[in-house]
Amino acid sequence: MAASDRPVFPVVGDGSGIEPDRKLHPEELQLALRNKALPLEGLRYDVTPTGLHYLLVHYDIPAVDAQTWRLTVGGHVRQPLTLTLADLQRRPARTLPVTLECAGDGRALLEPRPVSQPWLAGAVGNAAWTGTPLRGILDEAGLEDDVVEILLTGLDRGIEGGVEQDYQRSLPLDTALDDDVLVAWAMNDRPLEPQHGYPVRVIVPGWYGMTHVKWLRSIEALSVPFDGYQHTAYRYSQSRDEPGEPVTLMRVRSLLIPPGIPDFLTRTRVVQAGPVELRGRAWSGYGPITRVEVSVDGGASWNDAEVSPPPGVHAWQAWRYAWDASRAGEYELCCRAHDRAGNVQPVEQYWTARGMGNNAVHRVRVLVRAS
Amino acid sequence: MAASDRPVFPVVGDGSGIEPDRKLHPEELQLALRNKALPLEGLRYDVTPTGLHYLLVHYDIPAVDAQTWRLTVGGHVRQPLTLTLADLQRRPARTLPVTLECAGDGRALLEPRPVSQPWLAGAVGNAAWTGTPLRGILDEAGLEDDVVEILLTGLDRGIEGGVEQDYQRSLPLDTALDDDVLVAWAMNDRPLEPQHGYPVRVIVPGWYGMTHVKWLRSIEALSVPFDGYQHTAYRYSQSRDEPGEPVTLMRVRSLLIPPGIPDFLTRTRVVQAGPVELRGRAWSGYGPITRVEVSVDGGASWNDAEVSPPPGVHAWQAWRYAWDASRAGEYELCCRAHDRAGNVQPVEQYWTARGMGNNAVHRVRVLVRAS
Repeated sequence: MAASDRPVFPVVGDGSGIEPDRKLHPEELQLALRNKALPLEGLRYDVTPTGLHYLLVHYDIPAVDAQTWRLTVGGHVRQPLTLTLADLQRRPARTLPVTLECAGDGRALLEPRPVSQPWLAGAVGNAAWTGTPLRGILDEAGLEDDVVEILLTGLDRGIEGGVEQDYQRSLPLDTALDDDVLVAWAMNDRPLEPQHGYPVRVIVPGWYGMTHVKWLRSIEALSVPFDGYQHTAYRYSQSRDEPGEPVTLMRVRSLLIPPGIPDFLTRTRVVQAGPVELRGRAWSGYGPITRVEVSVDGGASWNDAEVSPPPGVHAWQAWRYAWDASRAGEYELCCRAHDRAGNVQPVEQYWTARGMGNNAVHRVRVLVRAS
Repeated sequence: MAASDRPVFPVVGDGSGIEPDRKLHPEELQLALRNKALPLEGLRYDVTPTGLHYLLVHYDIPAVDAQTWRLTVGGHVRQPLTLTLADLQRRPARTLPVTLECAGDGRALLEPRPVSQPWLAGAVGNAAWTGTPLRGILDEAGLEDDVVEILLTGLDRGIEGGVEQDYQRSLPLDTALDDDVLVAWAMNDRPLEPQHGYPVRVIVPGWYGMTHVKWLRSIEALSVPFDGYQHTAYRYSQSRDEPGEPVTLMRVRSLLIPPGIPDFLTRTRVVQAGPVELRGRAWSGYGPITRVEVSVDGGASWNDAEVSPPPGVHAWQAWRYAWDASRAGEYELCCRAHDRAGNVQPVEQYWTARGMGNNAVHRVRVLVRAS
């Protein structure tokens, strides 16, 4: 699109993309209603039901006819390929439980609040993904010696930050060659639903969701690193001008299933006094969860929860904690996880200009009432 | 819960439940992220994929074990029943395509805005529901002569307007005896996902969503009309104090699939100049759609669209309109439907104190750019 006929989009907030006010703009509401969080009670399922899995769609869900759909493999390869869905499904298949989380999870909890998809907590899910390793496809195409990254392009097209684009992300070569990176056609033993990438998407275990390109149409071997829009947008930085660091693996996080019953409008919880088993999930892209701590006093004191082993190396882990909620009153429940790499969730917010990776401890307000 | 230990929930807005400000409260954001709209491009599917169907959950999705779950049938009946899921599934089964819409769809477009689930447009879906007619169950239980309503109770429990409650709605007897009212265990040929009422929900074709009780646990024949919370909350009125009229059948509505490509943040559409086929859906609880009109100039002039017959008597109808978008510029696309009962969507908002049934014409802003 030439600069002259580029439409001017309405400025949201003061134009800095950061909103000091706690109230939300209508544009953020549109995004909140399109994109879907896992309701926190949905954490109870080991495998997230398809319709409960979190969902972020940058542009529109494209209309795809699987009969005419083709996956092209090109760039710096010796043998470019064009594959049908049947071609892919004849290849060796694997099914992996993989936890996926949006890098922006927790953004709307930040103060000041960066304006974008306004996630609170729960932009996460853990599904069983079936596909064929990307590595096998790259081996068949034959990578040239100068390849450094693998570029993935989806069929979804839109405008972001004034740039019209197909959705594109690249993988470092060593990641692309990991046997657990899948070109996937099934979720929870069913063909992908349209919103999850039908007919085919990429699964890159351990990485935040922006990397798992949906509606995949091409794989391209690059001899120079990709620097497209989605690589400049997913950065950790203190201002939008500085380049910062790339967003890659999921930062350690835990969430808890709010106990008791909710108030409809405020979602405040009411719990009957007595013993309460608190339960939740924890995950990290940097390794297994080694410890989860729970606080029932807003973080003043912490107690160890019991942590289950992961159902797969890339899947979240369950945790539980026996809370003696015998005394009526108001409580703030918190949880924080540690991973084997030594990472731990911060008590204070993790603030960046684009609201990425805010893995501050999860807090749930609860009113315990006398039995 | 005794009044003395009833928790005081934070007041949202000025306490009137009506918010003149366009910006949203954090409480509304929580609701927007839990509850799910159909992304408008999802209108392209005749049958809405399960994970794209709109979803409103008043309280929490309950955890239900289908092995121990039972449906009780009681009240003013000659033979109370207790049914297992297998008992239900041995009964005569029907599959019906049914369009479901939330009564609050369009609420957040209202000015001033009633504070509750802040739907814009798209709290709708059209799925294939499989179940057994409620009538057969009532016949087997044998209704007493004094029965006037059938009360449906779900397993979901919470607090709303200060009232702790199981989710309950009643049906007028003549509605309950309609052969198309189903006690349903499948959606789109699969067991219900948890968020859609697993293991069993009610489907009441033509009615707004609040009537289709999910996680059904009991059916009770009443000799006096039910006046529980959900019947006082779903009302059309000009203030929260007056009783108003009950919300029942879906008011006539049409939606259009936004053409072109979106801007990520604002969702503004960009369309390449040239012929554009506009498409969408229309439905009404009062009868078939007889006419859909389209405007490309914000409602200044209207043109008839081509309307398809319904795929089932309770399912939405497709419509299409050939738009000559040859001239670059800014357009506001609108659509409005008429039903056989003579209802037509209003150009102005339909304002009520609780934001119910706002079926004003759908508007989509589009920028056409030169090719």
